[in-house]
Amino acid sequence: MSFQFLNPKGDARFKDRHTTKVDETRLVYEEGMEADIGVIGLPSSKSSISLSLAAEAPKTIRAALRSFSTYSGEKNHDFADVRWLDFGDVEVHPTDLKQTLQRLNQSVSEMLDTNSCNRYIMLGGDHGVSFPSISAFHKKYGRIGVIQWDAHHDLRNLEDGGRTNGTPFRSLIESGVLLGKDLVQVGIRDYSNAKAYSDYAKEKGVKVYSMGDVDLLGANSIVSDEVKRLSEHVDMIYLSVDMDAVDQAFAPGCPAVGPGGLTSRELLGSVAQAAAHPKVKAMDIVEVDPSKDVRDITSRLAAHVMMRFMYEGSR
Amino acid sequence: MSFQFLNPKGDARFKDRHTTKVDETRLVYEEGMEADIGVIGLPSSKSSISLSLAAEAPKTIRAALRSFSTYSGEKNHDFADVRWLDFGDVEVHPTDLKQTLQRLNQSVSEMLDTNSCNRYIMLGGDHGVSFPSISAFHKKYGRIGVIQWDAHHDLRNLEDGGRTNGTPFRSLIESGVLLGKDLVQVGIRDYSNAKAYSDYAKEKGVKVYSMGDVDLLGANSIVSDEVKRLSEHVDMIYLSVDMDAVDQAFAPGCPAVGPGGLTSRELLGSVAQAAAHPKVKAMDIVEVDPSKDVRDITSRLAAHVMMRFMYEGSR
Amino acid sequence: MSFQFLNPKGDARFKDRHTTKVDETRLVYEEGMEADIGVIGLPSSKSSISLSLAAEAPKTIRAALRSFSTYSGEKNHDFADVRWLDFGDVEVHPTDLKQTLQRLNQSVSEMLDTNSCNRYIMLGGDHGVSFPSISAFHKKYGRIGVIQWDAHHDLRNLEDGGRTNGTPFRSLIESGVLLGKDLVQVGIRDYSNAKAYSDYAKEKGVKVYSMGDVDLLGANSIVSDEVKRLSEHVDMIYLSVDMDAVDQAFAPGCPAVGPGGLTSRELLGSVAQAAAHPKVKAMDIVEVDPSKDVRDITSRLAAHVMMRFMYEGSR
Amino acid sequence: MSFQFLNPKGDARFKDRHTTKVDETRLVYEEGMEADIGVIGLPSSKSSISLSLAAEAPKTIRAALRSFSTYSGEKNHDFADVRWLDFGDVEVHPTDLKQTLQRLNQSVSEMLDTNSCNRYIMLGGDHGVSFPSISAFHKKYGRIGVIQWDAHHDLRNLEDGGRTNGTPFRSLIESGVLLGKDLVQVGIRDYSNAKAYSDYAKEKGVKVYSMGDVDLLGANSIVSDEVKRLSEHVDMIYLSVDMDAVDQAFAPGCPAVGPGGLTSRELLGSVAQAAAHPKVKAMDIVEVDPSKDVRDITSRLAAHVMMRFMYEGSR
Amino acid sequence: MSFQFLNPKGDARFKDRHTTKVDETRLVYEEGMEADIGVIGLPSSKSSISLSLAAEAPKTIRAALRSFSTYSGEKNHDFADVRWLDFGDVEVHPTDLKQTLQRLNQSVSEMLDTNSCNRYIMLGGDHGVSFPSISAFHKKYGRIGVIQWDAHHDLRNLEDGGRTNGTPFRSLIESGVLLGKDLVQVGIRDYSNAKAYSDYAKEKGVKVYSMGDVDLLGANSIVSDEVKRLSEHVDMIYLSVDMDAVDQAFAPGCPAVGPGGLTSRELLGSVAQAAAHPKVKAMDIVEVDPSKDVRDITSRLAAHVMMRFMYEGSR
Amino acid sequence: MSFQFLNPKGDARFKDRHTTKVDETRLVYEEGMEADIGVIGLPSSKSSISLSLAAEAPKTIRAALRSFSTYSGEKNHDFADVRWLDFGDVEVHPTDLKQTLQRLNQSVSEMLDTNSCNRYIMLGGDHGVSFPSISAFHKKYGRIGVIQWDAHHDLRNLEDGGRTNGTPFRSLIESGVLLGKDLVQVGIRDYSNAKAYSDYAKEKGVKVYSMGDVDLLGANSIVSDEVKRLSEHVDMIYLSVDMDAVDQAFAPGCPAVGPGGLTSRELLGSVAQAAAHPKVKAMDIVEVDPSKDVRDITSRLAAHVMMRFMYEGSR
Ligand SMILES: [Ca+2]
Ligand SMILES: [Ca+2]
Ligand SMILES: [Ca+2]
Ligand SMILES: [Ca+2]
Ligand SMILES: [Ca+2]
Ligand SMILES: [Ca+2]
Ligand SMILES: [Ca+2]
Ligand SMILES: [Ca+2]
Ligand SMILES: [Ca+2]
Ligand SMILES: [Ca+2]
Ligand SMILES: [Ca+2]
Ligand SMILES: [Ca+2]
Repeated sequence: MSFQFLNPKGDARFKDRHTTKVDETRLVYEEGMEADIGVIGLPSSKSSISLSLAAEAPKTIRAALRSFSTYSGEKNHDFADVRWLDFGDVEVHPTDLKQTLQRLNQSVSEMLDTNSCNRYIMLGGDHGVSFPSISAFHKKYGRIGVIQWDAHHDLRNLEDGGRTNGTPFRSLIESGVLLGKDLVQVGIRDYSNAKAYSDYAKEKGVKVYSMGDVDLLGANSIVSDEVKRLSEHVDMIYLSVDMDAVDQAFAPGCPAVGPGGLTSRELLGSVAQAAAHPKVKAMDIVEVDPSKDVRDITSRLAAHVMMRFMYEGSR
Repeated sequence: MSFQFLNPKGDARFKDRHTTKVDETRLVYEEGMEADIGVIGLPSSKSSISLSLAAEAPKTIRAALRSFSTYSGEKNHDFADVRWLDFGDVEVHPTDLKQTLQRLNQSVSEMLDTNSCNRYIMLGGDHGVSFPSISAFHKKYGRIGVIQWDAHHDLRNLEDGGRTNGTPFRSLIESGVLLGKDLVQVGIRDYSNAKAYSDYAKEKGVKVYSMGDVDLLGANSIVSDEVKRLSEHVDMIYLSVDMDAVDQAFAPGCPAVGPGGLTSRELLGSVAQAAAHPKVKAMDIVEVDPSKDVRDITSRLAAHVMMRFMYEGSR
Repeated sequence: MSFQFLNPKGDARFKDRHTTKVDETRLVYEEGMEADIGVIGLPSSKSSISLSLAAEAPKTIRAALRSFSTYSGEKNHDFADVRWLDFGDVEVHPTDLKQTLQRLNQSVSEMLDTNSCNRYIMLGGDHGVSFPSISAFHKKYGRIGVIQWDAHHDLRNLEDGGRTNGTPFRSLIESGVLLGKDLVQVGIRDYSNAKAYSDYAKEKGVKVYSMGDVDLLGANSIVSDEVKRLSEHVDMIYLSVDMDAVDQAFAPGCPAVGPGGLTSRELLGSVAQAAAHPKVKAMDIVEVDPSKDVRDITSRLAAHVMMRFMYEGSR
Repeated sequence: MSFQFLNPKGDARFKDRHTTKVDETRLVYEEGMEADIGVIGLPSSKSSISLSLAAEAPKTIRAALRSFSTYSGEKNHDFADVRWLDFGDVEVHPTDLKQTLQRLNQSVSEMLDTNSCNRYIMLGGDHGVSFPSISAFHKKYGRIGVIQWDAHHDLRNLEDGGRTNGTPFRSLIESGVLLGKDLVQVGIRDYSNAKAYSDYAKEKGVKVYSMGDVDLLGANSIVSDEVKRLSEHVDMIYLSVDMDAVDQAFAPGCPAVGPGGLTSRELLGSVAQAAAHPKVKAMDIVEVDPSKDVRDITSRLAAHVMMRFMYEGSR
Repeated sequence: MSFQFLNPKGDARFKDRHTTKVDETRLVYEEGMEADIGVIGLPSSKSSISLSLAAEAPKTIRAALRSFSTYSGEKNHDFADVRWLDFGDVEVHPTDLKQTLQRLNQSVSEMLDTNSCNRYIMLGGDHGVSFPSISAFHKKYGRIGVIQWDAHHDLRNLEDGGRTNGTPFRSLIESGVLLGKDLVQVGIRDYSNAKAYSDYAKEKGVKVYSMGDVDLLGANSIVSDEVKRLSEHVDMIYLSVDMDAVDQAFAPGCPAVGPGGLTSRELLGSVAQAAAHPKVKAMDIVEVDPSKDVRDITSRLAAHVMMRFMYEGSR
Repeated sequence: MSFQFLNPKGDARFKDRHTTKVDETRLVYEEGMEADIGVIGLPSSKSSISLSLAAEAPKTIRAALRSFSTYSGEKNHDFADVRWLDFGDVEVHPTDLKQTLQRLNQSVSEMLDTNSCNRYIMLGGDHGVSFPSISAFHKKYGRIGVIQWDAHHDLRNLEDGGRTNGTPFRSLIESGVLLGKDLVQVGIRDYSNAKAYSDYAKEKGVKVYSMGDVDLLGANSIVSDEVKRLSEHVDMIYLSVDMDAVDQAFAPGCPAVGPGGLTSRELLGSVAQAAAHPKVKAMDIVEVDPSKDVRDITSRLAAHVMMRFMYEGSR
């Protein structure tokens, strides 16, 4: 028995024969598969300081990929042949948050140990996922450089609340996974941080670019200079994109929204700059809370960040 | 390579070992499968008189099944073993609406011709889908009785706009698929219909119960009496549930909402009454427009209507 | 030059030849016209105690009439020939609220002095409009009885804020327009009023029915008994429908929403009871704030209240 | 220097001299104070199975008290002299959820040890807060009877996720704090539970009333009978009100909404029945997630539940 | 009888004696009238690939004109004397979409044949309306040049879904109405198109400017150069403004929103550049779906596009 | 009795030991206190031409200060020691709007007469509050210069509606409080004003900068030049920030939103420019209507405007 207009396994949406949607290039990972890009969901946000539903973002960001296609006019190239492996989402624990961090770390490691992909995208979750994620990359790859787009330092002390979404880079530095000088922060905003953590950044040699610096130097040139600098002494570069680096008008779906941030063009342009460098092997996108969004525009922006990463590096 | 907390094919949600969610009893149809219930999506709403996104309801209603479980305390029975076959959604045509109606009819027929299920649920879409759907049942089963929950007669003339969501029962009667006396309408509301169509109903022998009748007689007893009556002379009974029969406070996601309708308990109770009868073999649920809903409560109510149908008949 | 599908003066919506929408029976008032029903908008809500956009309700309630038709199945009668005269909205003053009250009173009086209609509907606005409106009726008709659907007494003192939406019935009693015993209040809710005003009601002989009374006696029977009682000694009866008498689930668009109120069916049924009496000549509908509503369901309920009033009295 | 229209410490809202708002009878607790009612916020929802912002409800429910007053017309009594002590909210831990449960338990105990009030209200948070809360009452008062309004049993096993909002009554029974036969569940809904937990309830002697039972017997009479029964053998009775017992139309702000539940009048009436009994000493209100609500109507309903409890017991 | 504050025919809004709102300069077309600008509504969106309510935009865009006035400070000129003729909206067919396209074409032609205006504005509707609209202009005026603001090429093949909102410019080129080299596309976005259609554009000589080109050259200069170029060989220039050319933060109400687009200032500035050229005789504004908008800001932006077109050309 | 995790007087939120939130530097004013900054709420919006809930903004703007901290990375300074005195909100009259204006004026004067602060922030309310506020400053300080960020002149005549939010600067000029040449308007937008008022501005010597001027000259340089110019002949400078100067994408919560306005960075930068000058002593922020906002982003932007003012001047 065959159906003409029904496909119980598939999807009934309209198909244009010449267009490949980004989600159509997704392969559900099975042992032995290889691809340029691997994607994993890290749906954890219970350790956020404020209540956050960022754990729901891996679903909405993947869904946003249905709306966009694989063709870049700027590069005049169709990336329909760039397949990406989807490793699914890590099953987090409802009440044991340490367990959850451990599971995130182990799962990213297991993914890396498949040796199946050249580059990886981690979809948060809140920024707390960067600690277990970057730790896993460190174990596999060695010395890591990090470019962090963020309004905030995320260098809070660990005493006041344990490992939260405010502490990942403190945790990484203190646990020896990351050297301060190998961390670059772009988009740090006034009246959104504390002096102690700015001082800590300086003390550790973290390279900090505020919105004032972005106004002066431009996001693109900051990022391309720093990628070049880092690439000379690290084994790989990891991009960590906290979407609240973007102005609240462009990314209303972040828990900690505020005015005076990056535009969507500044974010997309600077991520593309970084992604083009061969040492850039990984990126996480964090702090998208779909329950706070308007028309999923923050998830859509996150999807474009993914596409810039996926396709800039594969030219 | 095996993962401990990752399952690329599956879903990372929390699982309680003793609870079966209704969506977990779903089987994607493959040739040769058999089950009590078959489900098909009829995602068509472009022929609605007003602009409607009811075509998106099959997705949201199926998603609502994730929130509910197979156990009925009232009957003290767990229906976890009642599997349902999902035939997917019909691929509609973006611009050729006649084609779309034809595809809906053919696809329901193809589903019936698999002879795989005892009973079927059709998820609209707008009420226009009942014409091709009931026509397909008629071809397969013979004389059909219909119980229609609706604020409206849906007996409009065909000249003023073709086959719309206002005409399905007119179309069925005029094309000889359905006898007027085999049609029962429950929940018809004042100031929501035209005299010409009420007169047409009378002329054709349609049995009409207004909200005033519901106040006097009760929805449950109206429906159980009429199912009994119909069952004596038809080959099967088809339930057609237009969710706008329910008051706008309980079903805000319908295109044609209004006050003074059924409560959610009246709808669920009366559908359960009908579903328990062995001649009731099919049900459609129509006119849920998820874009107009609040917290998906109309889709959730639709999901409960499904569960009442699925599990009342299988005791 | 004539157009086939364009009508610059009209409206391009779908027209079913057998259906008359309630807004199609509207006539823009011109001198000399006569009709059963006159409608006037009293778009005033700046004297509300809390900030209110109820002044926008005359537009949304009129718009809701587009969604409903003139045919009553319960009475098997099409009221398409019951025309209603629209006198438009009173132009209120942006900053001089006394001026506004004076304009409302004068405009209602001018409308009554046209002697063009048998019965009138006033669309608020907040409840403050009932004072100038009922005063105008009193001047024209003499002794007035009032049935007020409301969660609140609206008998506040005038010292603490002047004439607000909390004072209309106090103002009417104190100014001698209304006798306490000629006022009936239905749906008064616990924890939503003050003892001083309940005492004042008793002292003045106001007949008060709480939600507890509605539970015991039923809204329909309360209203029909009281209309009968009032009709024996007043010259006409005025219905004043504060939509917050209805439970917040059915009327979320009122400024002072709360739980435990009337259902939509209880409101519609009891208004219909009253409207059928020949001494019932006028009704206002107040406290609908469209900016707080969900899918305009409160305006739609208000539209049904209008239709019950318009068509029950004209059988 | 004194100001005429400025009061830096106070609040600039409109004040009617005869009306006392419920929040005006609140006293911030200081040592030595005594009152009829004590209120504590338990802002914890990170152990919910699904992501929940119920931790924000203590703020919105307290805020809703600003909209209602102390006068009951049904009882013709003004409760303006019934002061309630506000103990504030427990400071929860951002990442250590066991710590949080321990803090909730300790804080309720500390409140009880002030011996300052006759009766207490606990504002959740998710239903997980009932375990530490009832445990604290047990330690202080001895044998506890519980009336639980809920669509769900909340008797899940503890292995699959630790102590979540699905386990409080299992935890209480297993830890010996509560006897099965001292637990009464009202409003349990079909297709929202698992057979294993229904069986567990039976095995432990829990008294379960489904929505079918509510249809047959009435919520008021179920509750008043069970309070009488419990009162004969327990030291005190604790009411646990999960707002999802109410139909989703009346309480859209609950995480686990569904159709076919209690009306707002059924909930308020049955809570009032219970509160009138002298052995009823405590109540929690849980599972209100303000981020999912519409116009705060679920918080407003919760505020009315509070008022029924506060004022029924103090006649 | 005359009223002081009532004007049944008019509108009760506040009037400042020195301010003319743009909607006050509207004239309902009657035979014989002449004006600078004619406006027609093309409320068609059922042939959109995804479900769209863009058909409702002519109403919301016209409504937005109430909020803005006729005075330009930049040009220090009040355009209160520039009247525009409103031809109303085309009545579309509910189910026969070919009929609808034919009615749109015929109605635009009928409007042009009145010879009443110098320039015309067409309010969509989805982008599918540009095919019948531009065809009508071609018939009347001859060779047409088109400047299209859009994130997408709209050059899809016609086999996969018939004439949709993805095909208008393909349809125009293939039917010989428009030469490829007479079409200019501005704002084309990466990952939003297919290579086949980019190739098709090249093959046909369409002039394509991506967002990368906008970053380099500026929207204003691109448009003014291209208008000049086109004007040398076409008979008139038609502007086609798909609002999704604008970034989703500035135009959230478009069906196909995405990040990285034009700002509102870039759109308004470049439309003004074009409108100033005497060969620019027509403009359509499409793909505004009011049901997806936030505070009608996309309709308000569309209204400003209208005003730039109306008043730039009339200096 | 002391509690470990309960603080009935305080607040249970998470506290990072190194971070000071801006609201933690607030002091409730008591006689004798002194500080750099005084803040007063002017919750008046009933004299707005359109219905406005801007009166609710003082609460939401203060609440937004909870989300931001006192540390500026750009200046590498923690302003935790800059305390601000909160004088609370003026109690407005519900129905007597003249009384309200008088109370606003008197209350600002009383605040100034405490001589407790160097600089003051007034939180509106609609723009009508600037008339009584600036008048109070004039009385205390003498000749005032004003920089007004606004899309509108606010120079309407007083005959058509009395003192509204469209008239404050007309009122100030006509009453001799402000010289035309001492008023600078920045961000005036096309099609949002009337020629008569632009002419009036010219006649009175008001310095007007349109959005075209902002495009050409930059907001920062306009403001810093004008502050310098004004400072040479006035006694103090007052900033009046109507948030609708900002584009609707960045400030959706203003009653009169429109496209083509300032970005958030342009507003924050130019306010900071002004605040740094020692003659700048006062600022009001007006026209934020929280009921129209999205995620409170307009209130958050207003909070950043406050912080720029507070901390730029105190270096
Ligand atoms: Ca971060
Ligand atoms: Ca951040
Ligand atoms: Ca129907
Ligand atoms: Ca219907
Ligand atoms: Ca009232
Ligand atoms: Ca009321
Ligand atoms: Ca529960
Ligand atoms: Ca529950
Ligand atoms: Ca397009
Ligand atoms: Ca497009
Ligand atoms: Ca202004
Ligand atoms: Ca303004």
